[in-house]
Amino acid sequence: MAVARVTEITSSSSVSFEDAVKQGIERASKTLRNIKSAWIQEQTVTVENGAISEYRVNMKITFVLDD
Amino acid sequence: MAVARVTEITSSSSVSFEDAVKQGIERASKTLRNIKSAWIQEQTVTVENGAISEYRVNMKITFVLDD
Amino acid sequence: MAVARVTEITSSSSVSFEDAVKQGIERASKTLRNIKSAWIQEQTVTVENGAISEYRVNMKITFVLDD
Amino acid sequence: MAVARVTEITSSSSVSFEDAVKQGIERASKTLRNIKSAWIQEQTVTVENGAISEYRVNMKITFVLDD
Amino acid sequence: MAVARVTEITSSSSVSFEDAVKQGIERASKTLRNIKSAWIQEQTVTVENGAISEYRVNMKITFVLDD
Amino acid sequence: MAVARVTEITSSSSVSFEDAVKQGIERASKTLRNIKSAWIQEQTVTVENGAISEYRVNMKITFVLDD
Amino acid sequence: MAVARVTEITSSSSVSFEDAVKQGIERASKTLRNIKSAWIQEQTVTVENGAISEYRVNMKITFVLDD
Amino acid sequence: MAVARVTEITSSSSVSFEDAVKQGIERASKTLRNIKSAWIQEQTVTVENGAISEYRVNMKITFVLDD
Amino acid sequence: MAVARVTEITSSSSVSFEDAVKQGIERASKTLRNIKSAWIQEQTVTVENGAISEYRVNMKITFVLDD
Amino acid sequence: MAVARVTEITSSSSVSFEDAVKQGIERASKTLRNIKSAWIQEQTVTVENGAISEYRVNMKITFVLDD
Amino acid sequence: MAVARVTEITSSSSVSFEDAVKQGIERASKTLRNIKSAWIQEQTVTVENGAISEYRVNMKITFVLDD
Amino acid sequence: MAVARVTEITSSSSVSFEDAVKQGIERASKTLRNIKSAWIQEQTVTVENGAISEYRVNMKITFVLDD
Repeated sequence: MAVARVTEITSSSSVSFEDAVKQGIERASKTLRNIKSAWIQEQTVTVENGAISEYRVNMKITFVLDD
Repeated sequence: MAVARVTEITSSSSVSFEDAVKQGIERASKTLRNIKSAWIQEQTVTVENGAISEYRVNMKITFVLDD
Repeated sequence: MAVARVTEITSSSSVSFEDAVKQGIERASKTLRNIKSAWIQEQTVTVENGAISEYRVNMKITFVLDD
Repeated sequence: MAVARVTEITSSSSVSFEDAVKQGIERASKTLRNIKSAWIQEQTVTVENGAISEYRVNMKITFVLDD
Repeated sequence: MAVARVTEITSSSSVSFEDAVKQGIERASKTLRNIKSAWIQEQTVTVENGAISEYRVNMKITFVLDD
Repeated sequence: MAVARVTEITSSSSVSFEDAVKQGIERASKTLRNIKSAWIQEQTVTVENGAISEYRVNMKITFVLDD
Repeated sequence: MAVARVTEITSSSSVSFEDAVKQGIERASKTLRNIKSAWIQEQTVTVENGAISEYRVNMKITFVLDD
Repeated sequence: MAVARVTEITSSSSVSFEDAVKQGIERASKTLRNIKSAWIQEQTVTVENGAISEYRVNMKITFVLDD
Repeated sequence: MAVARVTEITSSSSVSFEDAVKQGIERASKTLRNIKSAWIQEQTVTVENGAISEYRVNMKITFVLDD
Repeated sequence: MAVARVTEITSSSSVSFEDAVKQGIERASKTLRNIKSAWIQEQTVTVENGAISEYRVNMKITFVLDD
Repeated sequence: MAVARVTEITSSSSVSFEDAVKQGIERASKTLRNIKSAWIQEQTVTVENGAISEYRVNMKITFVLDD
Repeated sequence: MAVARVTEITSSSSVSFEDAVKQGIERASKTLRNIKSAWIQEQTVTVENGAISEYRVNMKITFVLDD
């Protein structure tokens, strides 16, 4: 792996933090090739009427650049 | 959302980190109205006899103040 | 608890972050006695072909020293 | 100043960051006596249609406790 | 807001920090759609002959990705 | 310990940092029940005429919430 | 710019944060030549009777050393 | 320099950290115009059979946007 | 001092923070030779019935490795 | 207090951390007028033959500049 | 790589930072098997009579545990 | 070493980061006696036409004060 870029995204899920990570990587894979890893920077939940409505993650995604 | 307060709590669960978040928000909702979000600051586990006995989260809860 | 040591490990799982925590504590328990807690420092995922192949955690494990 | 408490709030203004600080302190003064200072932790703007709609600050407010 | 990207920019103004924020968001809006917020990371001033010649901000801009 | 709150205070003493911690916890105990621990975040001294006039600590106090 | 020194100051203003930056740079220019920039590290306000009495900044000032 | 973007990359070299920085900037220059600076965020080495096989840097690259 | 290792411990005392540091270094000296220094990372107190029952420090201990 | 400078020193004592703070402020007072406060940044101990030989503090000292 | 440990060392060289990294990894390889990487945490130089006498690095070394 | 001061400088070199450290210490030695060490805080490169034109370091220099 010679040179890689790191890009930051946030994504959310009504199910769980891990589903939010999965959603984010799937969306990123539509436009970025060769994603290698993601580092979870932050985890937050949105609350409505005293209950969790959304799990949200902020993450840094690393993908290898083509030569 | 004009002015909101942020308060810090820790909560625990024998099941999972997400259940600990849920327990904390439910307990906080007993005394705080209008909770909007929670930011997970730390995640720890308590271990007994080599097995996880408790999932614990420290989080910052944001709730809107009434005018 | 008079004096405790803190050691840093990383562990992984193909299932979930919580399973990675569990795997790490089980492996550490083979050589360390009296583990009391673990603090999750970092969470990353490894990605292959646009899908998560591995959940990885970096954590600090605290264990009490015998006198 | 013997003992003081520190509480965290966020507040917003459509005008400027300094107006957001001012709004937050005025609102906090309704319920807290003896506010001495505020430390600006974060500054964010909300954007709508390419223009700033809201200036938002997160701050830590210190107020002295009565004996 | 399902998935959003976060991008980092710096921008400057000879007038004020808030004008630097405004300039940066206007420039970013030329190429990025659906900007939702910006977080001010750093504020610096450039000095020439003992006077401020430029207000500069570094900020993280969040914009929602189209599906 | 199911759910606990964390609150931030500063306190001072003319004697020592440890006395400042003690003063802060005694004052906090007047209004908070079930204090379990305090984490010392910052230590400062006030100086007058080249001599220390006050030892000051900023700390985060954790107390368990009643059910 | 071969070698530069960085010095830390705090300054205040009753008007605004930007005026506090300006006051600090003007005062520093009395004794330091060749100031090139200042990085705003912290922003606080002093509050009296529920109103802001002082805007205060802590900043790092960079100035080039003569050969 | 009115508005600049900051992008994060990692790059590697079998020779040295400075060669890794050089490789990364050369690769980035293929797609980004007007690169002005790079800030080295992290330095790591990969080890194989007790010897360093790769020097790796993570850096933030600043480039000026065309008007 | 060619190569040194750094290890993290926590230790406690019912007397003071400095006694906790002393206890930790004495315990560490039983198994580690050539301890050179310790850096205090965190200071906490345990509270029981509104009074401090334990002073606790987390520290990083540096010791030189034999050749 | 219009404009103040902040300078960083380390000082040591064979007695205690507080004595190290005191020694540092006394030494600084020989050359700096109007010292107002000191913020303790780091605390380390030097160890010789398994015993603490020196308490060392790193601190930031704030002193007011004459007009 | 299922479970890995992370250990912290400092090492030095009279030649360069990269030689200090190399020295540290060679020394660590005497007692640790399966070292995979090292992360450079800090770089310092020791100075004698106005000249650099020693390059020193603090690094975190990751090595895989045998099953 | 009883009391030492810490001062921050930045220095640059067209050759390498280590040469920048060396240049900075040599320049500092013209006005500061008894420099003991320097801690590298930041490393940046300046880029012109896609090539590195300058290696720059920001460092904290510690020097012992005469009694």
